Amino acid sequence: MNTYPMKLVTIICESLAREPVTRLLAEVGAHGHTLFAVEGEGARGPRPGDIAEFGNIQVEVVVPPDTAEQLLTRLHSEFFPRFGMIAYLSDIQVLRPAKF
Amino acid sequence: MNTYPMKLVTIICESLAREPVTRLLAEVGAHGHTLFAVEGEGARGPRPGDIAEFGNIQVEVVVPPDTAEQLLTRLHSEFFPRFGMIAYLSDIQVLRPAKF
Amino acid sequence: MNTYPMKLVTIICESLAREPVTRLLAEVGAHGHTLFAVEGEGARGPRPGDIAEFGNIQVEVVVPPDTAEQLLTRLHSEFFPRFGMIAYLSDIQVLRPAKF
Repeated sequence: MNTYPMKLVTIICESLAREPVTRLLAEVGAHGHTLFAVEGEGARGPRPGDIAEFGNIQVEVVVPPDTAEQLLTRLHSEFFPRFGMIAYLSDIQVLRPAKF
Repeated sequence: MNTYPMKLVTIICESLAREPVTRLLAEVGAHGHTLFAVEGEGARGPRPGDIAEFGNIQVEVVVPPDTAEQLLTRLHSEFFPRFGMIAYLSDIQVLRPAKF
Repeated sequence: MNTYPMKLVTIICESLAREPVTRLLAEVGAHGHTLFAVEGEGARGPRPGDIAEFGNIQVEVVVPPDTAEQLLTRLHSEFFPRFGMIAYLSDIQVLRPAKF
């Protein structure tokens, strides 16, 4: 069975960021995502906007590597300064790359 | 601490597919899985059955590489034609391989 | 865009283990985690304490590699003997390593 390399981008953010994040996913061309509520406790760093005790969501999206790059670049420049948020990349393998 | 390579298979599908998917996991010999409800938006491709706006589940299962191969092969041949569904593989490390 | 390697540790356990697990995360210096309820079915092994049919949680935490090692070592020695639980490691990439 052939598999193809893709990237999973996981975004954990305030629920407040839901609309702008899903709009961004559409703008970079992501073909789908999942989203679910999580409890969490954020970095105890200096920024009060860091991820709140409750009311966070986890958004997961599978995209080609170049889309992942665009997505992270825009998250970094446009979203990280405004929202309590973390994001990370994982390498995954899919069967049908045309779906993503 | 020694760790051992395993595969995480993530399946995102219509809730409708829950029973056949969990039956398939048992058939290929998976020893456990987690399952949770997700919101999502699927590939805006040509198939109307692609993942619906709501009512999806995410199923995660840790298995040895050969079981992952069997699972993906059967998902591809038996499930992808019938259900709105995506699946992907990740490499992970576990401490106690006998558990999986 | 530069990314930095980190570890994602995923812990699936009885809800009962929630307090001791989150206390352990704080003790090893993890800066944040997410937690959500999952349904699941555990290893059909010999131990009755293995993950119950319902009432499990999935805890995910992003940490530097050495923290992941400490966390797994303590899970293995202090938690695995007492709780129905599995844990696994994934390699991920982040943009801002100072957050974790």
